[in-house]
Amino acid sequence: MTTVELIERKRDGGTLSPAEIGWLIRNYTSGSVTDYQMSAMLMAVFIRGLDQEELSAWTDAMLNSGDVLELSAIEAPKLDKHSTGGVGDKVSIPLAPMVAACGIAVPMMSGRGLGHTGGTLDKLETIPGFTTNLDPETFKRILSKTGLVLAGQSKTLVPADRKLYALRDATGTVPSIPLIASSIMSKKLAEDLDGLVLDVKVGEGAFMESYDKALALAETLVGIGRAYGLNVVALLTNMTTPLGREVGNANEIAESIAVLAGGGPDDLVEVTYALGSERLQMAGLAQDDQAARQVLRAAIDSGAAMEKFSEVVEAQGGDPRVLEHPGLLPKARYQEELPAPRSGYVTVCDALKVGVAAMRLGAGRERKEDRIDPAAGITIVAKLGERVDEGQPLARMSFNDEGRLATAKPLLKRAFHIATIPAAQPSLILGEVRS
Amino acid sequence: MTTVELIERKRDGGTLSPAEIGWLIRNYTSGSVTDYQMSAMLMAVFIRGLDQEELSAWTDAMLNSGDVLELSAIEAPKLDKHSTGGVGDKVSIPLAPMVAACGIAVPMMSGRGLGHTGGTLDKLETIPGFTTNLDPETFKRILSKTGLVLAGQSKTLVPADRKLYALRDATGTVPSIPLIASSIMSKKLAEDLDGLVLDVKVGEGAFMESYDKALALAETLVGIGRAYGLNVVALLTNMTTPLGREVGNANEIAESIAVLAGGGPDDLVEVTYALGSERLQMAGLAQDDQAARQVLRAAIDSGAAMEKFSEVVEAQGGDPRVLEHPGLLPKARYQEELPAPRSGYVTVCDALKVGVAAMRLGAGRERKEDRIDPAAGITIVAKLGERVDEGQPLARMSFNDEGRLATAKPLLKRAFHIATIPAAQPSLILGEVRS
Repeated sequence: MTTVELIERKRDGGTLSPAEIGWLIRNYTSGSVTDYQMSAMLMAVFIRGLDQEELSAWTDAMLNSGDVLELSAIEAPKLDKHSTGGVGDKVSIPLAPMVAACGIAVPMMSGRGLGHTGGTLDKLETIPGFTTNLDPETFKRILSKTGLVLAGQSKTLVPADRKLYALRDATGTVPSIPLIASSIMSKKLAEDLDGLVLDVKVGEGAFMESYDKALALAETLVGIGRAYGLNVVALLTNMTTPLGREVGNANEIAESIAVLAGGGPDDLVEVTYALGSERLQMAGLAQDDQAARQVLRAAIDSGAAMEKFSEVVEAQGGDPRVLEHPGLLPKARYQEELPAPRSGYVTVCDALKVGVAAMRLGAGRERKEDRIDPAAGITIVAKLGERVDEGQPLARMSFNDEGRLATAKPLLKRAFHIATIPAAQPSLILGEVRS
Repeated sequence: MTTVELIERKRDGGTLSPAEIGWLIRNYTSGSVTDYQMSAMLMAVFIRGLDQEELSAWTDAMLNSGDVLELSAIEAPKLDKHSTGGVGDKVSIPLAPMVAACGIAVPMMSGRGLGHTGGTLDKLETIPGFTTNLDPETFKRILSKTGLVLAGQSKTLVPADRKLYALRDATGTVPSIPLIASSIMSKKLAEDLDGLVLDVKVGEGAFMESYDKALALAETLVGIGRAYGLNVVALLTNMTTPLGREVGNANEIAESIAVLAGGGPDDLVEVTYALGSERLQMAGLAQDDQAARQVLRAAIDSGAAMEKFSEVVEAQGGDPRVLEHPGLLPKARYQEELPAPRSGYVTVCDALKVGVAAMRLGAGRERKEDRIDPAAGITIVAKLGERVDEGQPLARMSFNDEGRLATAKPLLKRAFHIATIPAAQPSLILGEVRS
C-alpha cells in the first residue's frame, strides 16, 4: 500500500478501507505522509465524498491521533454543545452556566473565530484575566469543583485535526460535509461526553447556506454520534441575520451577561432556551420542553446561573466584577453610527455582510495568524423587522483603528434593506435531527 | 485574487482565466504558491478538467516559465517526434538519424524512463562515453554541424514542468489528459520546431489503455499545436505487446542499430517507417507515403542513416565503434530463459507485464530516484503470433543482480499465453489525427 495508490483510488471514486484510512491519518500526523499528498487526497475526498464506513473510519482515525479525556470520576451527566458557527452567536456563553446551574457537567472546549464567524475563546478572553489555556489537570479540577469549565482545545486532543484543518484552510477544502463532520465529532468524542447538542446554522451567515446542505451535515453528525453510541441532537437554526444585537467580542460578553441577568434580545434568548431544553431533557433533568424551560428560567431568576458564571470566571483567573459592571470590559476609542437612509422597517439585515464588516473593524481574523481587537464590533440598533426613522441609527460601529472604518462601513450599509411594509419574520428553529 | 479562491473555483467546476492560470504557474515556479496548494489544484484539474482556453493558457504559462530555444539560424526544417511511452519503444533512436540523413534538422530532447516504460536518454547513455547533458551552446553547435542532436531536457526550458511533474508523480495526478498534453506540448513548443510528429501509444503497455482516451489525448495535443500554428500529426499505435524483441536499455540500442543496418523486427521497422514518412511529408521532402518510404529506405541502404548516427554519437562523446560492434555495449552477468510450458502459438505477450518484469530486473525505475542497470532487460524470443515448441524459450532475461529474478520471472511467465490456434494479428497503426 502506498499513499499514491490510496489517492488514486479516491480520485477515481473508489472506497478506502478502515485500515487504509487509519494508516493515512496516522502517517500524516507523524509527518511521513506529506502535506502535498494529503492536500491531493483532501481534494479527492471533497469532490468524491466518503461513504458511511469511510466516514466512521476517518473520524476514528482522527480521534485516535491523540489523547482522549477521562472524566469517569465526574458523576453528573456530561453534556456539551457545539455550534457550526454564525454571526453574533454567543449562545454557548450564557447557556453553559445556565445548564451547569441545573446539574449538568459542562466540559466545554471551544475554538477561535475565523473569517466572518466569531469564536467563543476570543469572546471569553475579553474578560480581564480570564485564561482558556488549561492543562488537563486544571481542566478536570475546575470541572469537578464548579461543574463547568470553558477551555481551548487541548493540544494533545485530536492533533490530526489541527494539522488537517490548517491544510484544508490553505487548499480550498474546508466546506466538505464529511471533513467538517469528522473534525467536529472527533473533537467532541474526545471529551468523554454522555450527550451532545448541536446547533447547525443555516443561511448566508453560516457555513451551510442552504437548508438541504445543513440538514445533510446535521444527519452526518448525528450518524457519527449514533455509531459511537453517543446521544446527539441537532437543531437547525436560522443564520440569515445576526443573533442578538451584538457582533464582536467584549460586546458579545456584555450581551451574554444580560441574558444571565434575565434580559437580552428575544432571538438570542429563544435559541439559548431551545438548546438548553434539549440538554436538560437529554440529561434526564426534565420530562419535556415546557418543564425544561421552567427549570432554566428558575436558574436565571434565582441568580444561580449568574453565580455559576461568576464561579467559573474566578476559577479561570478572570475578574468576576465584570458580571455586575460590564463597563470593565475593553472599550473602543471610537464609535460611529450608521444612519437609516429612509424611514421604514428593516426587511434585510444580512448576517454575512455584518460579520465581514465586524471582522474588518478588527473583531475577527481574515487569516488565522491575525490578532483580534477585543473592543471592536457592531451593535445592531434596528434589528430585522424593527421600525426605524430616517437619520436614526441602524447600527453602531466600535473600533480602535480609524483606518479600518473605510472598508467596513460601505459593507455594513449594504447589509440593511428598509421597506415601508414589514416582512414576515423567519423562524428561528428550522428543524431538528435526533439519533 | 488568492490561491485558495482559484482552487475553490476549479474545485466547483468553474473556469480560470488565462491571467489567473499565468499567475498560478508563475507563482508556483517561483515558490510563492506552495506544493500543497498546487497539489489540491492539480487534483481539482484532474477531476474537473480544463476547457480549450484554459488548456492553451496552462500550456502557455508552462512554456513561459523558462527559456525557449532560438534556432532560426538552422535553415533545414526542424522537426521532432514524441512518443507517449511504451514497452520496447526505441523508435526515436533509429528514426532520428534516418530523417536527419534525409535533410531534416532534429533538435531532439528526450526524457528518462519511469515505471514500466523506458526512456530514450537511459538507452542512449548505455553507449560508452555518450553524454546527453548538453549546454544550449553545445546543443546548437552539434545540431548545426550534424543536423541532429540527442539531448536531455535543458534545465532552463519549461522549469514549471519539472516541478509539476514531480508533484503529480507523488500525488496521483499523472494520467490527466490536459496535464499530460500541456506538459508534452510546452516542452516541444520550447524547441522552436517547424513541425512535430506524435506517437500516441494505445493499450495495456501505454499510459492510455483505451482507444477513446488515446484519441482524446491525440486530439488535445494536436489542438494545442494548432493554437500555436505548429504543424502536428499524431499516429495512434498499438502498445498491447512490446515493440520489437528487446526491452531494456543496451539491448534496445543494439536493436536500433540493427534497424539502421537494414534489419530489425518487422513491427519496429513498420512503426519507424510510418512515423518517418509523416516527418518527410511534413518537411516537404516527399510527396506521399510511398515516396517518403523510398527516401527512408535509400537512407538505410546507402548507409547514410548509420553514418549520421555515428556522427552524432561521436559529437556527443560516445564510442562510435558500438555501431559495428554492439558487443561493446554493457553486458549482464546472468541470463535465464523462460521456457514455453507447451507447444503452440503466442496469442498474448502483455506489454505491461513484460515492462514491469524488465523494470524489476533493473532496466527501469520504480521511483524517480532509482538507478537503472544498463545491461538488464528482456529479449522476446517468441513474439506475438509466433510458433514455439514446448521447452523452447519464450523470452530471455538478462540481469546483474540475482536477487531480482524472483520478482521478475513469475510476472514474465504470466505475460505469455500459448494456444493451439494462432490469433489474428492486431494492427500496428490504429488511427491518426492531423492539425
